Amino acid sequence: MFYLDNPQIDQIIKLALSEDIGMGDITTLSTIPSEKTADGKFIAKEDMVICGIDLADYIFKKFDASVVFTPNFKDGDAVKKGEVIATVSGNARTLLVCERTVLNFMQHLTGIASKTAQAVKSVEGTKAKIADTRKTVPGLRVLEKYAILAGGGTNHRFNLASGILIKDNHIAVSGGIKNAIENARNAAPQTLKIEVEVENIEQLKEALEAKADIIMLDNMSNEMMAECVKIIDGRAIVEASGNMGEKDLTQVAKTGVDIISIGALTHSVKAADISLKFKIS
Amino acid sequence: MFYLDNPQIDQIIKLALSEDIGMGDITTLSTIPSEKTADGKFIAKEDMVICGIDLADYIFKKFDASVVFTPNFKDGDAVKKGEVIATVSGNARTLLVCERTVLNFMQHLTGIASKTAQAVKSVEGTKAKIADTRKTVPGLRVLEKYAILAGGGTNHRFNLASGILIKDNHIAVSGGIKNAIENARNAAPQTLKIEVEVENIEQLKEALEAKADIIMLDNMSNEMMAECVKIIDGRAIVEASGNMGEKDLTQVAKTGVDIISIGALTHSVKAADISLKFKIS
Amino acid sequence: MFYLDNPQIDQIIKLALSEDIGMGDITTLSTIPSEKTADGKFIAKEDMVICGIDLADYIFKKFDASVVFTPNFKDGDAVKKGEVIATVSGNARTLLVCERTVLNFMQHLTGIASKTAQAVKSVEGTKAKIADTRKTVPGLRVLEKYAILAGGGTNHRFNLASGILIKDNHIAVSGGIKNAIENARNAAPQTLKIEVEVENIEQLKEALEAKADIIMLDNMSNEMMAECVKIIDGRAIVEASGNMGEKDLTQVAKTGVDIISIGALTHSVKAADISLKFKIS
Amino acid sequence: MFYLDNPQIDQIIKLALSEDIGMGDITTLSTIPSEKTADGKFIAKEDMVICGIDLADYIFKKFDASVVFTPNFKDGDAVKKGEVIATVSGNARTLLVCERTVLNFMQHLTGIASKTAQAVKSVEGTKAKIADTRKTVPGLRVLEKYAILAGGGTNHRFNLASGILIKDNHIAVSGGIKNAIENARNAAPQTLKIEVEVENIEQLKEALEAKADIIMLDNMSNEMMAECVKIIDGRAIVEASGNMGEKDLTQVAKTGVDIISIGALTHSVKAADISLKFKIS
Amino acid sequence: MFYLDNPQIDQIIKLALSEDIGMGDITTLSTIPSEKTADGKFIAKEDMVICGIDLADYIFKKFDASVVFTPNFKDGDAVKKGEVIATVSGNARTLLVCERTVLNFMQHLTGIASKTAQAVKSVEGTKAKIADTRKTVPGLRVLEKYAILAGGGTNHRFNLASGILIKDNHIAVSGGIKNAIENARNAAPQTLKIEVEVENIEQLKEALEAKADIIMLDNMSNEMMAECVKIIDGRAIVEASGNMGEKDLTQVAKTGVDIISIGALTHSVKAADISLKFKIS
Amino acid sequence: MFYLDNPQIDQIIKLALSEDIGMGDITTLSTIPSEKTADGKFIAKEDMVICGIDLADYIFKKFDASVVFTPNFKDGDAVKKGEVIATVSGNARTLLVCERTVLNFMQHLTGIASKTAQAVKSVEGTKAKIADTRKTVPGLRVLEKYAILAGGGTNHRFNLASGILIKDNHIAVSGGIKNAIENARNAAPQTLKIEVEVENIEQLKEALEAKADIIMLDNMSNEMMAECVKIIDGRAIVEASGNMGEKDLTQVAKTGVDIISIGALTHSVKAADISLKFKIS
Repeated sequence: MFYLDNPQIDQIIKLALSEDIGMGDITTLSTIPSEKTADGKFIAKEDMVICGIDLADYIFKKFDASVVFTPNFKDGDAVKKGEVIATVSGNARTLLVCERTVLNFMQHLTGIASKTAQAVKSVEGTKAKIADTRKTVPGLRVLEKYAILAGGGTNHRFNLASGILIKDNHIAVSGGIKNAIENARNAAPQTLKIEVEVENIEQLKEALEAKADIIMLDNMSNEMMAECVKIIDGRAIVEASGNMGEKDLTQVAKTGVDIISIGALTHSVKAADISLKFKIS
Repeated sequence: MFYLDNPQIDQIIKLALSEDIGMGDITTLSTIPSEKTADGKFIAKEDMVICGIDLADYIFKKFDASVVFTPNFKDGDAVKKGEVIATVSGNARTLLVCERTVLNFMQHLTGIASKTAQAVKSVEGTKAKIADTRKTVPGLRVLEKYAILAGGGTNHRFNLASGILIKDNHIAVSGGIKNAIENARNAAPQTLKIEVEVENIEQLKEALEAKADIIMLDNMSNEMMAECVKIIDGRAIVEASGNMGEKDLTQVAKTGVDIISIGALTHSVKAADISLKFKIS
Repeated sequence: MFYLDNPQIDQIIKLALSEDIGMGDITTLSTIPSEKTADGKFIAKEDMVICGIDLADYIFKKFDASVVFTPNFKDGDAVKKGEVIATVSGNARTLLVCERTVLNFMQHLTGIASKTAQAVKSVEGTKAKIADTRKTVPGLRVLEKYAILAGGGTNHRFNLASGILIKDNHIAVSGGIKNAIENARNAAPQTLKIEVEVENIEQLKEALEAKADIIMLDNMSNEMMAECVKIIDGRAIVEASGNMGEKDLTQVAKTGVDIISIGALTHSVKAADISLKFKIS
Repeated sequence: MFYLDNPQIDQIIKLALSEDIGMGDITTLSTIPSEKTADGKFIAKEDMVICGIDLADYIFKKFDASVVFTPNFKDGDAVKKGEVIATVSGNARTLLVCERTVLNFMQHLTGIASKTAQAVKSVEGTKAKIADTRKTVPGLRVLEKYAILAGGGTNHRFNLASGILIKDNHIAVSGGIKNAIENARNAAPQTLKIEVEVENIEQLKEALEAKADIIMLDNMSNEMMAECVKIIDGRAIVEASGNMGEKDLTQVAKTGVDIISIGALTHSVKAADISLKFKIS
Repeated sequence: MFYLDNPQIDQIIKLALSEDIGMGDITTLSTIPSEKTADGKFIAKEDMVICGIDLADYIFKKFDASVVFTPNFKDGDAVKKGEVIATVSGNARTLLVCERTVLNFMQHLTGIASKTAQAVKSVEGTKAKIADTRKTVPGLRVLEKYAILAGGGTNHRFNLASGILIKDNHIAVSGGIKNAIENARNAAPQTLKIEVEVENIEQLKEALEAKADIIMLDNMSNEMMAECVKIIDGRAIVEASGNMGEKDLTQVAKTGVDIISIGALTHSVKAADISLKFKIS
Repeated sequence: MFYLDNPQIDQIIKLALSEDIGMGDITTLSTIPSEKTADGKFIAKEDMVICGIDLADYIFKKFDASVVFTPNFKDGDAVKKGEVIATVSGNARTLLVCERTVLNFMQHLTGIASKTAQAVKSVEGTKAKIADTRKTVPGLRVLEKYAILAGGGTNHRFNLASGILIKDNHIAVSGGIKNAIENARNAAPQTLKIEVEVENIEQLKEALEAKADIIMLDNMSNEMMAECVKIIDGRAIVEASGNMGEKDLTQVAKTGVDIISIGALTHSVKAADISLKFKIS
């Protein structure tokens, strides 16, 4: 759900290739003649929800337009351990030089998609959606948000300009939730919903009265969240937040919240185990 | 062990700020008047080896030179749960706008430093050093390598140009380890050591004969590694490699290897739990 | 309502300075000795709502930190013909080299703010807000949106990712407004409102039924808009759109719409007449 | 009269796409399946001199090389209201995502070309040429100068390094026109002509004596300009300047000047009305 | 005669620092504690015309604003062997890290300035000026042109857009010199002079008749140049060109030409011998 | 032995094209119609070792993918005076616009390769290799290092991060060579060799004792170098350094050193004489 031609993605790809290649892969250049070709297989070494296939193709082609990349799956597909995710063939030097960068991207994004898919599964049967946060690894925001979608999750706001989220400090300075919401409603684009973070029932009621569009229940017990959901009664979207990565998501979902946002989906990623084996000829 | 003025770091900081700020923090801008000031505390919510303090200062100052950042620790220090890592004060809008980006960097780097410190501790008393790999998160190579140092580890080669590492494909195409080493020795800068990845005793002997500077033992059992160390007998530096993130490092170190390189230190990071609380006035 | 340190603004400033300075201001360099200083006055040559004062200061300082810039007004203020907007003093070469670039930005942004202020004035006494569109001059989006705010207007979505706007093509492909809204609601961030462009009463009703958050009335007569407002009856925000730059805004506002969005505010700008006169010593 | 591969144009295109696309067109991505294709028509909604056709093709192809763009006109052609300027076909998402950026460029440049063509027409039959100034919209200098040519105008100097233009301050500091010209002649490249801005007959004579190549008559009445032309008598190129956008150009041309330079051609542009209608299948 | 804040210079400085520092100066970082300070002296190891002093200061400060740089000379000054050009003091790591980059710039530019000064000296007493060409080292155009000025030379056109130079191919395609000049006069900015390259007397006469502003005598003997100068008789500026780096410039100048342009001044540079010695404490 | 897709090379190419083209080649654009095609020949005007052929092809294609470039030689080949190095054909404007930039790169790199080849030839029959240094022209490091290889030389460390070179200051601050080496060995990547610069026999012995991998003999007489080689006796690689560009390399090589590193190979380059002649039709 994004375009690879996005200039921000080009920048991070360039940075990644640049930091890994430096002045050139001297091992490969000194041992592999320039006319050699290679065939490679991306193999899943564990079960995973794959993400980064289009990106892999894009990176190889950026480097050398003659590379042939053949995917067996598409982003968001479940891949079983041992399956061949994709094959790639082309100039041997090109493939060896790009190998690590491509894998670093793909393993990171697949790690996120897989973790997201697990979270989504654990709330199956409830109306809760699994969402990300702004706790992403610097430089990878757009790609990580894409991996969340590949895993079946939904995106929270992309950045500080694409959503209004009123927190404790904004409330305190504005002199209460009502004032803060009014300030935001007057100054911000009408196209954005207004979300308010609440910590107790009193704040919740104030937020509802001021017609907040989304209520974020911050660091509450499941019981308290269930009570809040009852009070809100459909008048606003309800989001559960606060160390959700360490909670029993099924139980959280049963409180009736609409969204569970989880920073750990992107800030604490376990890379998926993917290997790339080449045959050179 | 790096300079923040490095153009590569500037690029990733710009990218990170850009992707988070977008067209501006509309919540803050509409609720916090421009003349407000804030005081913030970075608090450790768990024990950690801190990393990213200089970087935090640098990011704030880049954004607004009048920010005052006062560290209580320096990169590499152990911080106990509950301790105040640093304080920051300045324009309230500035601090709120930079908050997430600064934390995203600091939590990620501290996660790496802390994990590295644990690994280093588990090999204490042996001669083994803990090293990183090129399995880093795209765009963050130089910062992640710095975090490894902060955690007490050592760096493996920075990129494909700053070290020679001969692997299976290079060997196969060159027609054997001896030829591959010779090719590299003739063509690559004399300032770089030559490392060879070996999978069995026969390859090991061939590599020693060809006077490899470093031998990488790839995916071997501890027993086999111990045997290799005996055969090598000081004639080369010995590196243990291959899913080391899942092994008992103490046992690996006892085989007598010089270096244990662990991809998981950087490809599978758990963000350290750090909070930043503001008081606005 | 934005930060000058935003990397996107830095880019356009660099581009602007670069394209105007080229290899250096040879006239100034050959006729004005390097030790000369200058004092300059920005003078309004017509009535205007000023915008670009902070930016002017920022550009001068970027070029030469020792420039002293003293504003007599702040962005959004009304300035009368003949008044001194700001004064600037510093190295004579610096000021002459930056003069045109600073003026080009300031005159363009002030043109937008002034035009916006006129539109805002013409709907005074109604609830209608004046909004911009995505019809901005390439590269200046964030600055032009800021000028809209300075003129008393409000911002529509910043870009394609910070708002959902369902138009004819999206509706046709999705098989109706209801389906399109559902598709968007499922896939897009919950933090964004859903806006639908309707061309007739039938579409309007379908959009209301599907609970669109904002209804855009596209290219309708005032009579028809008034009827739509009546039908909507507070169930959605109502936006008037379509060549609004050529309409009698007072009459449009009287139909009861909430927002009037006007492409011409940014795509057809008349530069404000501002002069910068120097005294060199 | 420029090359699209010019790095400066790439930068502004990237910036424009980046600021409009942000993290992706979420409306399109959630409602238009990726396999859909679209056919579009650029239609002139008023008479115009078209500019930006090559650029449109270039932007689409940059984003997606498989787009097919078929122009019916070329830059500089007169297009009548209702005519189809060009057609475009390709992936539906691509076309919808690029639509606004392409139109923003094309409408702006066509606005400039059309306004220039009108000015050129009003001096037909005289020897006067219509020229631009450095009063261009930041970041668009090279494109706007190109649009001037498309409209039949001629370019004044591109930037501060590609022409010498001695104004009041340069004269004052140098101690007179003669000294200023001498200073410039000694220090600047011989390949550039020397132009001097004069405000009265006395200055004019001094400039002629010092063998200025071009004389700029600044803010003079037509009568005074006619007198100056007579005095100059072919010894220098004569340029009329100063709020020319608000003058009767036919009368100005009849004074016998060689060039009339008009800032308003680029600083006060009315976007041309061009629509792009798609049929998706 | 340029500004260091020119974005093009920033780019080449960043590139230079980036390519030399890579991921950090590991030797210095591992042997010099961060609190050490250093004092350095730039010493001329041969006679030279210095260039790059402002640039050196600028690079150090860019890297670390606290560096103190004290020049004893200014760009363009003659420095004798053994003299101290400048001193620098600051953080020891900073100075060691920047040392090579600063010297690489300064030695290259001083090499150019010194060579230019020699050429200028050899034409002393004639009216000939020494000029550069577009045969500059890629990426260093603006700096090299500045060094030419420091050496007492004058600049030829900066680039393809800041001067018209009609050569054999342009003439052939246009159907003769007259047509080529007319084409250029009609299409190019009036602010630029028209230069024509001629190879024989016939071409010379054609160029004069078409009122070329500058005549380039290409690869002619001194005798033939003298004859051309006579024919031209002040009606155009005369430039001698073609392997001038290998000619006796005094003799060339005596032919009466106005400009001698020499590619070798920038394409074949001998770095000036400058040392930078530190005392660390 | 490098990849043209390296982002650093892209940057310098862009910078070079940008600085030479500026806003466009106005001479060519006004005299050569856009439909003209041209055929060009790169001709060697002296004997040379060619370098930059792949780069030339790359630059032309970057600018216009339809250019056909046909090399008769490959980088590193010896070319005789008068031979045709390569031919190129394509759009006439494209070729004329790129001509100077392509030649500037090719003549500079060929100058380096040719000078390197001469040095290599003068040490033929000895074991000495000719190496470069970090004294490269800013921005061209990677290309110049490539030209060294084309000339038959070998590369010294690419930058400060890809090799350890302990010099006088590092030694002084560390308190002796032994300490300095130990510091480096503990902190720097194991993949890098440790080189120490020594100025006398005493330092040499200390360096050997501390097991330096490479010994740099700095500014010694040939006699002293021969004595050092004898003392070292194969225990370390031996590098001769210090104004080697002015020495009799045959004699230096006969001292038995392994590497002779020469700054002048890159800091004092004489451009190779290559012409590019077009036939336009």
